[in-house]
Amino acid sequence: MHPLLLRLRGVIPPLVTPFREDGAVDLPAFERNLAAYAAAPLAGYLVLGSNGEACALDEAEKVDLVRAARRGAGDRPVLAGTGLESTRGTIALTCRAADAGADAALVVTPHYFKSQLAADALIRHFEAIADASPIPVLLYSVPAYTGLALPAPVAIRLAAHPNVIGLKESSGDMGFLNRVLGTAPELGFLCGSAGAFYPALCAGATGGVLAVACAAPEITCALHAAATRGDHDRARSLQRTLMPLAAAVTTAHGVPGLKAAMDLAGYAGGFPRAPLAPVSEAVREELRAALALARSAID
Amino acid sequence: MHPLLLRLRGVIPPLVTPFREDGAVDLPAFERNLAAYAAAPLAGYLVLGSNGEACALDEAEKVDLVRAARRGAGDRPVLAGTGLESTRGTIALTCRAADAGADAALVVTPHYFKSQLAADALIRHFEAIADASPIPVLLYSVPAYTGLALPAPVAIRLAAHPNVIGLKESSGDMGFLNRVLGTAPELGFLCGSAGAFYPALCAGATGGVLAVACAAPEITCALHAAATRGDHDRARSLQRTLMPLAAAVTTAHGVPGLKAAMDLAGYAGGFPRAPLAPVSEAVREELRAALALARSAID
Amino acid sequence: MHPLLLRLRGVIPPLVTPFREDGAVDLPAFERNLAAYAAAPLAGYLVLGSNGEACALDEAEKVDLVRAARRGAGDRPVLAGTGLESTRGTIALTCRAADAGADAALVVTPHYFKSQLAADALIRHFEAIADASPIPVLLYSVPAYTGLALPAPVAIRLAAHPNVIGLKESSGDMGFLNRVLGTAPELGFLCGSAGAFYPALCAGATGGVLAVACAAPEITCALHAAATRGDHDRARSLQRTLMPLAAAVTTAHGVPGLKAAMDLAGYAGGFPRAPLAPVSEAVREELRAALALARSAID
Amino acid sequence: MHPLLLRLRGVIPPLVTPFREDGAVDLPAFERNLAAYAAAPLAGYLVLGSNGEACALDEAEKVDLVRAARRGAGDRPVLAGTGLESTRGTIALTCRAADAGADAALVVTPHYFKSQLAADALIRHFEAIADASPIPVLLYSVPAYTGLALPAPVAIRLAAHPNVIGLKESSGDMGFLNRVLGTAPELGFLCGSAGAFYPALCAGATGGVLAVACAAPEITCALHAAATRGDHDRARSLQRTLMPLAAAVTTAHGVPGLKAAMDLAGYAGGFPRAPLAPVSEAVREELRAALALARSAID
Repeated sequence: MHPLLLRLRGVIPPLVTPFREDGAVDLPAFERNLAAYAAAPLAGYLVLGSNGEACALDEAEKVDLVRAARRGAGDRPVLAGTGLESTRGTIALTCRAADAGADAALVVTPHYFKSQLAADALIRHFEAIADASPIPVLLYSVPAYTGLALPAPVAIRLAAHPNVIGLKESSGDMGFLNRVLGTAPELGFLCGSAGAFYPALCAGATGGVLAVACAAPEITCALHAAATRGDHDRARSLQRTLMPLAAAVTTAHGVPGLKAAMDLAGYAGGFPRAPLAPVSEAVREELRAALALARSAID
Repeated sequence: MHPLLLRLRGVIPPLVTPFREDGAVDLPAFERNLAAYAAAPLAGYLVLGSNGEACALDEAEKVDLVRAARRGAGDRPVLAGTGLESTRGTIALTCRAADAGADAALVVTPHYFKSQLAADALIRHFEAIADASPIPVLLYSVPAYTGLALPAPVAIRLAAHPNVIGLKESSGDMGFLNRVLGTAPELGFLCGSAGAFYPALCAGATGGVLAVACAAPEITCALHAAATRGDHDRARSLQRTLMPLAAAVTTAHGVPGLKAAMDLAGYAGGFPRAPLAPVSEAVREELRAALALARSAID
Repeated sequence: MHPLLLRLRGVIPPLVTPFREDGAVDLPAFERNLAAYAAAPLAGYLVLGSNGEACALDEAEKVDLVRAARRGAGDRPVLAGTGLESTRGTIALTCRAADAGADAALVVTPHYFKSQLAADALIRHFEAIADASPIPVLLYSVPAYTGLALPAPVAIRLAAHPNVIGLKESSGDMGFLNRVLGTAPELGFLCGSAGAFYPALCAGATGGVLAVACAAPEITCALHAAATRGDHDRARSLQRTLMPLAAAVTTAHGVPGLKAAMDLAGYAGGFPRAPLAPVSEAVREELRAALALARSAID
Repeated sequence: MHPLLLRLRGVIPPLVTPFREDGAVDLPAFERNLAAYAAAPLAGYLVLGSNGEACALDEAEKVDLVRAARRGAGDRPVLAGTGLESTRGTIALTCRAADAGADAALVVTPHYFKSQLAADALIRHFEAIADASPIPVLLYSVPAYTGLALPAPVAIRLAAHPNVIGLKESSGDMGFLNRVLGTAPELGFLCGSAGAFYPALCAGATGGVLAVACAAPEITCALHAAATRGDHDRARSLQRTLMPLAAAVTTAHGVPGLKAAMDLAGYAGGFPRAPLAPVSEAVREELRAALALARSAID
């Protein structure tokens, strides 16, 4: 098992990118969040993930954010989302992210031409990136956004590459997890679905990259700690209490919901970038209640 | 918690319907399977489930199968799949199944007119059935076949009905499980996805209705027993070993794959009903290997 | 080209099944609709289609409806929807429908086990039915309800069977139409999408089986007549005027919307069968406006 | 109707971006294609469309390609695909494309966060772009790639913006076309589905942006000419003959199939950019046959 994986055993928030009302990246707000997260026992950070609105950032903004994450992360590892549609573009961005201080690259499956992206194309893509990358690579499957689920046999095949150290899976598909870890148990497995976090930890996941951790890092870490020390009753209870908030900040209200929940929790969510828009006042009230419920679990 | 649920804590095979080559139901083969399953510590049986090819049976065949299941089940409970597209038809079949000896009804979501089946329509449907049914009702969500996932709020609402005692969920969606059990912890939750069985048990599932248990009941029961007694390492290991067989008899090769695996395991799979066709010899070899691997876990 | 096809050149309403408030089939209302439709230049009728809520009827009700359709159809041909999930069940129902007077069978693709229903399974299924059926067979593809689109090569292959005389396609996929008619120009092609009716007629469709024709038969027939006599400007204009009503009675409000529009138009829509429910008053107002607009085109 | 639309009445090939084997843009090959296309009666060109692998290009490459298209297009209009996930990024790229000589911008729907992109978000997005763009804007809906279909009411609403002059729709949805043109007949409608081209022209489409036109411009133009002059029999026949090639270069084999067909037809397809890979020799043979069939229609 790669030494970096030992450091990823835990909760990793996929950092949001706060924007100002005029649409510019609010880097000071981003840095304040990192400073605030230092108080929670988080395992590391993901910058430029889906929740970081990476798809809406230009390359210069991306590099600035990696640099800022590295500066603010202390001794915690920083993963950077560097996947683009082309192999060539992904390699270039991965190298820039590595230069800017990323400890590892999280590479989403390409997906625009989904009908042409069968197993062999995905294997070629990720192998070429892993060959060229100066930092370890983690695969990233998020079918809700991409419409393409990384097939288990592709993940198993890529696990043999020395520079592929893990993956993030965001649909919560336990069959995928069990198939992959049954054959490639040394692969780091980061759960990207808050609703599946405790079950995934039971089944052998390394940790979780969970949007809800941006708004409620302590309870998410408490869940992980309970599961890790074998306190299944407590973990099960924390998992259930977290659900309304977890469902609200992803499926129901997306990144705008997450950002509003962060604002309510005292972090800096900031504006989403258009065409995403801030949530309504009614949604804000729903988030306030879900946040209060989640916090009640660790009071 | 309903007393029947206490008896459903465990593994419940969704009984296949063996057909003869001419397409007729092979009732003696069905009975032989029940006799053979008596040796495994199964919790009960489901007759007329998806794997029982209920969609391909006529009403007289259905009633005969419920009766045969009841006769062959000994003191184990028998669930019967009685869901049809109309509320009226479902009530009629549920009453006939109850008369024929079913202990509870498993009612799949209607789905043909999926765009018209929003929450209120589903609630009306299941409430009317639960009102009319002489036996307890379990909801059944299987989006891979129906294209419609039972929404968590609908399940939570229906949990308040005194005659709705549980549900079967076959996509393995842990977020759904955690949302439902977080709000309605008294609801029986049967996991219908073999790849999610151990994680679901950790998260509070009552038991599992798993196709793979028709071909490998002992290992599936061993997994359940390990999880129940808190032997997580053993449960995790059994779960992983079971995966190739579990994936082969559902996603990859469907009911024909399951029936072939049963034949290889010494049970009576029989022919599927056309348009389903028996698997090829190559698939049979793949199933043989997956079965041998699964069995190696408990030798 | 089969002689029956010559009689299907035109508009064929997929007859709704009016129910009473208590859920029973209202056969007199069904018969009144047929009597009223006699005044419009319709080419024939479809009984037991999707819009007839065939999925919610039992076998005795189905046979009664075929018989009533035959009685009320005068010398117009009657197609009957006889597709079930099993080959065996479909053959049995097709024979009963033929005995009851159906002139041809419209057989929907099986779909519950969609991942096991590749081209060869579909071909076996339809060939066996066409072999056994005493009446001509038309294939039926309706992916919005079934989640399965009949592949063009399957339709082309089945066109070679002497008892397969045509098909109904309800997604409006023009590429499918052009591929099929490019290779099998003798196949009858019934367009099942009102929004694609005029374009489909240009491209060579034989006729249309259109829900909107149940509520507005005259304008639908006028559209067909304009297209047939080469008055493209008039056909294009009628097509556009028909759109709001066509969209409302299918995609937007389904069978309950169609039934409400029929009531508003002076036909007998009746109640849908639960879990479908009558539309709200607001939807009824929307339908009234769409109906008035459609009718304005032929005043 | 905007004067530019008068010039878009016809066939517009979505220009491919030929790559060298090392993955670099082969600009001379791109220019040779434009020179060769001058011989066919094409209405204009689209650069940076889906078939141009825009998703795999960086910004500098995009601007170079617009410039080269403008240089090579003679007096034909050049549309440029400038849609990105963010409103801000799309505006910036649209301005650069305008500076580089594009006559209009074709802006794909954003789609990564599809569950948050309801009608109001799409309307805000396109209105902001149309407000800021120095060149006319056309909307672009391509659900096969994006998983998001532009809703008809959104298109109708945006038609009221003076700088939104049209749209391209690539699924071939005739109901969408008829709803949109029924309410907003002045909107330019470019059909993006070769299989729906002739039917769409009958229904009022302005022209077509069709991948197959990159490999077979003459027959595609001949189809358009026949439809335009009212020779429906000829148009119908050309449409059918074109189908095997049209299906092969899009659905079946994607951009690599299109590039191979172009090579076979004497144009410069070049390599696709990884992870896309060149087609196999077997596919090349299939394409050769389809190309020969298509060409036979105009010999």
